[in-house]
Amino acid sequence: MRLDILDTTLRDGSQAEGISFSVEDKLAISKSLARLGVAYIEAGNPGSNPKDLDFFSRLHSIDTQASKVVAFGATRRKFIKAEDDENLNSLLLSNSDVVAIFGKSWDFHVEKIINCDLAENLLMIKETIAYLKGKNKEVIFDAEHFFDGYKSNPEYAMQCLQAAVDGNADVLCLCETNGGCFPHEVEAITKVVVAKFGKQAKIGIHAHNDSDMAVANSIASVLAGATHVQGTLLGFGERCGNANLVSIIVNMQLKKGYRCIPPENLRTLTGVAKEVAEIANIRIASRAPFVGRSAFAHKGGMHVDGVRKNSKSFEHLNPETIGGKRRFLVSEVGGKSLILEKALKIVPNLKIDSQKAKELVQYLKEKEFEGYVYEGADASFALLIKQHLGLFTPSFELKHYKIIAGDQESDNETSSAIIKILVDGKVGFTAAEGNGPVNALDEALRKVLEEFYPCLKKVNLIDYKVRVLNQKKASQAKVRVLITSGDDHDSWTTVGVSTNIIQASWIALVDSLEYKLMNKE
Amino acid sequence: MRLDILDTTLRDGSQAEGISFSVEDKLAISKSLARLGVAYIEAGNPGSNPKDLDFFSRLHSIDTQASKVVAFGATRRKFIKAEDDENLNSLLLSNSDVVAIFGKSWDFHVEKIINCDLAENLLMIKETIAYLKGKNKEVIFDAEHFFDGYKSNPEYAMQCLQAAVDGNADVLCLCETNGGCFPHEVEAITKVVVAKFGKQAKIGIHAHNDSDMAVANSIASVLAGATHVQGTLLGFGERCGNANLVSIIVNMQLKKGYRCIPPENLRTLTGVAKEVAEIANIRIASRAPFVGRSAFAHKGGMHVDGVRKNSKSFEHLNPETIGGKRRFLVSEVGGKSLILEKALKIVPNLKIDSQKAKELVQYLKEKEFEGYVYEGADASFALLIKQHLGLFTPSFELKHYKIIAGDQESDNETSSAIIKILVDGKVGFTAAEGNGPVNALDEALRKVLEEFYPCLKKVNLIDYKVRVLNQKKASQAKVRVLITSGDDHDSWTTVGVSTNIIQASWIALVDSLEYKLMNKE
Repeated sequence: MRLDILDTTLRDGSQAEGISFSVEDKLAISKSLARLGVAYIEAGNPGSNPKDLDFFSRLHSIDTQASKVVAFGATRRKFIKAEDDENLNSLLLSNSDVVAIFGKSWDFHVEKIINCDLAENLLMIKETIAYLKGKNKEVIFDAEHFFDGYKSNPEYAMQCLQAAVDGNADVLCLCETNGGCFPHEVEAITKVVVAKFGKQAKIGIHAHNDSDMAVANSIASVLAGATHVQGTLLGFGERCGNANLVSIIVNMQLKKGYRCIPPENLRTLTGVAKEVAEIANIRIASRAPFVGRSAFAHKGGMHVDGVRKNSKSFEHLNPETIGGKRRFLVSEVGGKSLILEKALKIVPNLKIDSQKAKELVQYLKEKEFEGYVYEGADASFALLIKQHLGLFTPSFELKHYKIIAGDQESDNETSSAIIKILVDGKVGFTAAEGNGPVNALDEALRKVLEEFYPCLKKVNLIDYKVRVLNQKKASQAKVRVLITSGDDHDSWTTVGVSTNIIQASWIALVDSLEYKLMNKE
Repeated sequence: MRLDILDTTLRDGSQAEGISFSVEDKLAISKSLARLGVAYIEAGNPGSNPKDLDFFSRLHSIDTQASKVVAFGATRRKFIKAEDDENLNSLLLSNSDVVAIFGKSWDFHVEKIINCDLAENLLMIKETIAYLKGKNKEVIFDAEHFFDGYKSNPEYAMQCLQAAVDGNADVLCLCETNGGCFPHEVEAITKVVVAKFGKQAKIGIHAHNDSDMAVANSIASVLAGATHVQGTLLGFGERCGNANLVSIIVNMQLKKGYRCIPPENLRTLTGVAKEVAEIANIRIASRAPFVGRSAFAHKGGMHVDGVRKNSKSFEHLNPETIGGKRRFLVSEVGGKSLILEKALKIVPNLKIDSQKAKELVQYLKEKEFEGYVYEGADASFALLIKQHLGLFTPSFELKHYKIIAGDQESDNETSSAIIKILVDGKVGFTAAEGNGPVNALDEALRKVLEEFYPCLKKVNLIDYKVRVLNQKKASQAKVRVLITSGDDHDSWTTVGVSTNIIQASWIALVDSLEYKLMNKE
């Protein structure tokens, strides 16, 4: 059975706090969504945002493949003709084949918020849709606040849908705008709508996550007969976000046999999700279902053991079906065989039973005892293994560094770093100022190394984390620093541990640059 | 109707990638949960982790109020007597009134993963529980993989529950361990269990979020008759996490009339959630339902307009009922009364409507914008208020400090600090060495201040935390430092924010000592 997916990342998703898309971003996201193969890409609201018209014309020039582009707008204003409403005419100018029109279906909103009488609102719905259908558009009617409306005044809510049907709408999309409904409510109300209008139009669901149930609500509606689902790929949206389409697509396609996207595209899902997150400059939460970094990560000893025997023991689906990866977290609980399995990916000809391998495991345990964790620090793990097996040559030798830092009152630039290194016998010596000691050291190290290795100019620090380990020791406590670096193609994470935060940062910083140099050939 | 909430942040939650709790962290989280008033705090697994025994004895020495402490462990090993199982005896040593025992209920797991025959597994369940009941424990049976087990072999899954009932278990908790079930499945299977065992034991639900439906699954189970819900306050847990208790508590208590926590504690929910996140050093996602920063943030123009006319137009509940704040992203409003409420506790004669009070609220907002949070930092909050109202005289004046730090190779003591202060016109000047720059500065400040204020000799630093705020700025990012200090009688927390970690630590350090001096009379 087909389930039409409408992604509104570019429209409702852009209402999220902290999200703002450039036209280039929007084009890039549209391409990603088209590659995934969603049925509809809701691209913007040309009536309320004139810049969107420019975007629509650029969007029509790229190939969105099987995905139809949707322009979004409101019903006509009260007491005017549809053809005189300039917002509606902007929708036509956007030139998309599909138009989504939202209208009120909660009596309270009609009367108290837009100060309109109930009968006029019905006419606004019907005439707006009829006007657009007359222009040969496919029309989706978004019944805003439908569920709250139905609970408050079921007859009126149904009359709003009837008005849309009378206007000849193709889809009646029931919006759970405030996100306060339970799945059993959504299911019951959808059933009523499907029974009454299911033969005249497709029924859709648009849910928000304020009660942490947007995915379940969407699915409840589909199981009650809806065949059109709106959401955003990563759940971006106003307040707590829209229904997460990654979750809906995987659940419905892999567990319930619906066809949401072409089956051969399922394997690209994790990759597309990461792409969209990158473009939006948002980090996917580590424990996000299906596509988070931890989604298929096993840490507990018994869990690791069980999954190695049979993955279904602690996995509800095989991560590879959606382009994901199973991960066993290297930690105290992970035993010897796990460490060696990971080491083999880095040094394929390592002999598992060799003395060297035993020493390697022992060495890793010592590092963990010191406070190192390699569960996130892939690059430091690779370096450490190569180093320990004698397969790594450092790119430089530190002679010394020195930090001078004062209080903010007496110094403007609070910290300076002086550094001296040797590369193939040649001395590099420089100094840099920074905003705090770690930043000064970071600046100085890059500056002096870039003289010898210009490729490092492309490496950026993406993320910097500090964790205090034995907090009871207070300012003498050990700290663990995790640094994520990246270039145009790749990103990697390194780790450093010391009681001295400068030293811990230094270790992670050096690893991050050495890792780049190790892989540059 | 009562719904028993079991929080397993300290046990299942600690299985999450990136989470590791010190004993101090665990005690602090237990206090927060007790203040919220959950029925059960699952505190650890003393059998698999010997360090947990120490934690349990410290936990019993604090007042967990109405919350019962739960020790977690497995059924006895196969083919031995329960009383000979050392893990079970560790559970008894932990001395908690309640014990949760997990056992297998999926035939596949019994036969293929733990290589046990089906009959012996039933004996393991029954005898383990009977043994613990004989020791006067309240026993919760966690039927691991119950839903997968029921789907695979319903008779055997039910026999496992029967074995637990035969052992006299108080609660049969159905675990959706792999997180792959849909609400309609959970509902149907719970109904079967409630019909068969509902009179002999309480029925519980323990769900995971791998399919993005843990909250909906838990609620489906409760609506089908379960009266005990397990999860973690913020959804921490293995892979995609456990069911989020914040969401379950609010949904069930405010929308369905269940009593999950004492009603008067609902207003503390947002604060407690933030506290637990701070202790775990985890950021609550901005769009997390109910307690995320954006949960009640309105950005779209029509939404802002609607909410100003009537909040129910785009809010499914009033954020203040759970201690949250509505935010209009265009113009920030709100929070004032809550701030003043807290300020009144420190300065009881503050006039709420005075110009001073208005300025105080404004000043606090500016500090929060800089990155300060006062949720956990009681002492800095008190100082700031007294300072702003002119009720505070600093104990010393900093002239300057200077840090000199080198790399570990070329210096043994890696850092030194020089400090000069004035106390009543008298100069104090000293230097100290330390393990890293913050420790050196800490040592120097104490040394020089103790000359003037000997009572500071009793003040210790108990805890030191660092949080990177805008991680994308990497080594230039702002950091927030939280310091907990204590003397014989009391402990208090202070906060500092700066792009320079030394400066941030300095601010928190000074506050911690000033707070002691302010209260010494």
